[in-house]
Amino acid sequence: MARYRLKISYDGTHYSGWQVQPNAPSIQENIEKAFFKLMGEKVRVIGSGRTDAGAHALGQIAHVDFETPFPSENLARALNHLLPRDIRILEASECEETFHAQYSAKQKIYHYHLWTERFVHPFVRLYRHHVAMPLNLDKIMEAKGYFEGRHDFTTFANVGSGVKNNVRTLKRITIVPQEGGLRFEFEGEGFLYKMVRNIMGALVEVGLGQLEPCEIPRLLEGKDRRLAGRACPAHALFLVSVHYPVNSSKEDKCENLAEKDSATLSLST
Amino acid sequence: MARYRLKISYDGTHYSGWQVQPNAPSIQENIEKAFFKLMGEKVRVIGSGRTDAGAHALGQIAHVDFETPFPSENLARALNHLLPRDIRILEASECEETFHAQYSAKQKIYHYHLWTERFVHPFVRLYRHHVAMPLNLDKIMEAKGYFEGRHDFTTFANVGSGVKNNVRTLKRITIVPQEGGLRFEFEGEGFLYKMVRNIMGALVEVGLGQLEPCEIPRLLEGKDRRLAGRACPAHALFLVSVHYPVNSSKEDKCENLAEKDSATLSLST
Repeated sequence: MARYRLKISYDGTHYSGWQVQPNAPSIQENIEKAFFKLMGEKVRVIGSGRTDAGAHALGQIAHVDFETPFPSENLARALNHLLPRDIRILEASECEETFHAQYSAKQKIYHYHLWTERFVHPFVRLYRHHVAMPLNLDKIMEAKGYFEGRHDFTTFANVGSGVKNNVRTLKRITIVPQEGGLRFEFEGEGFLYKMVRNIMGALVEVGLGQLEPCEIPRLLEGKDRRLAGRACPAHALFLVSVHYPVNSSKEDKCENLAEKDSATLSLST
Repeated sequence: MARYRLKISYDGTHYSGWQVQPNAPSIQENIEKAFFKLMGEKVRVIGSGRTDAGAHALGQIAHVDFETPFPSENLARALNHLLPRDIRILEASECEETFHAQYSAKQKIYHYHLWTERFVHPFVRLYRHHVAMPLNLDKIMEAKGYFEGRHDFTTFANVGSGVKNNVRTLKRITIVPQEGGLRFEFEGEGFLYKMVRNIMGALVEVGLGQLEPCEIPRLLEGKDRRLAGRACPAHALFLVSVHYPVNSSKEDKCENLAEKDSATLSLST
């Protein structure tokens, strides 16, 4: 028995999310099937967390235990031959048996992409949320400050995740202008179910003048999902990277690669 | 009757190319249908030239004549409401009746994208040709020089375009390193059927050591398509921009926009 750590990128457009579920295609199920085809062994691939139906990942991290001896350097290539082209194993390497993709995770980075110009370019249509009306960026900047820090995020969490404590530390929301609109970078220790999309929903409302930034503390204090508006859609959400404590040179290497990839992947046309 | 100039971007993945043909979806047909729905008028949309089945465009130019009075500033938006999301009219403006999208064109720029790393990222899988073996860039640089300039390109043109004179001036091939591989920029006065993809086929053969750069003059002089190897696939080919003589302030404006777009469109994730 050996434990392997996987770094995975996927286009979630055609999937019902990360997690295995009956009668719907998931990322997790596809990877487990690829392992079964490769090794004849039924494995469970444990991700750092779920991603929503339609959401994407540049650097999802998972771990998997299996018995079959398999040369580590060929594992990613062999799995990719068996996977659909919208799921790629970018790295696969043996790791400590104490490593756990979900419980060892210390930080995650998500990006959410708004397209604010008149027409969405065909090549990004599947990866941008189109808000064609003018946004007040000053108010969005003011509003995002109320979300940063340690808060009870019950108002911005959908039920269904099964967790009881909704207090989380949202380290930062960074807003970066990019081609056609804005990228919202979320970094935090942990995120509740639909938390990024719900916060984005509020930030867009603020930008459109439908919500005042100073109302956000009241919404947070109310601890009631019904106080806040609708979530932004999943197709513009990317899990960019998952970060772990650096306790071995092997993990150190993975960590740096994850950061490099997330910063530089681009489609230059 | 008024003549309009259109600037069009499309993801060609699901189309059989620009040109209308029986029993296959084309870009031209979809735009003509949108005009018919909008105005109840059957029009012919004349493009700067065909693009192959599966090839894409960032800045295809077309012209169209119609009788129905329609406010110019709303035309692009109205057409986009009626078009599939993988076809966008980026600009639509009234132009001189002497303007002809095909015959007035003076230069075209195409880009061809090679992915040379081990695994193709899911988000560019539809827009890159994957060559996973090491390429000799020095030899490719040497080889591309033989294609630049004025030549009879019969060896690198598929039959079917109906033209008799296969002499063309290929102004430049510029090779630009980019995420995951290389972008080949082709600029010329005019291109023969499958010419960019056939030249790319030869350049990849050179990069793989299957063809020597010094053999290319002999291939060109032979004027026989059978002398050269296979074309590279269409899905990595983009028509980036079409350039016209600057003879009015209106056209000058369009020209600059076309260049800006082609240089900056990117999918930052």
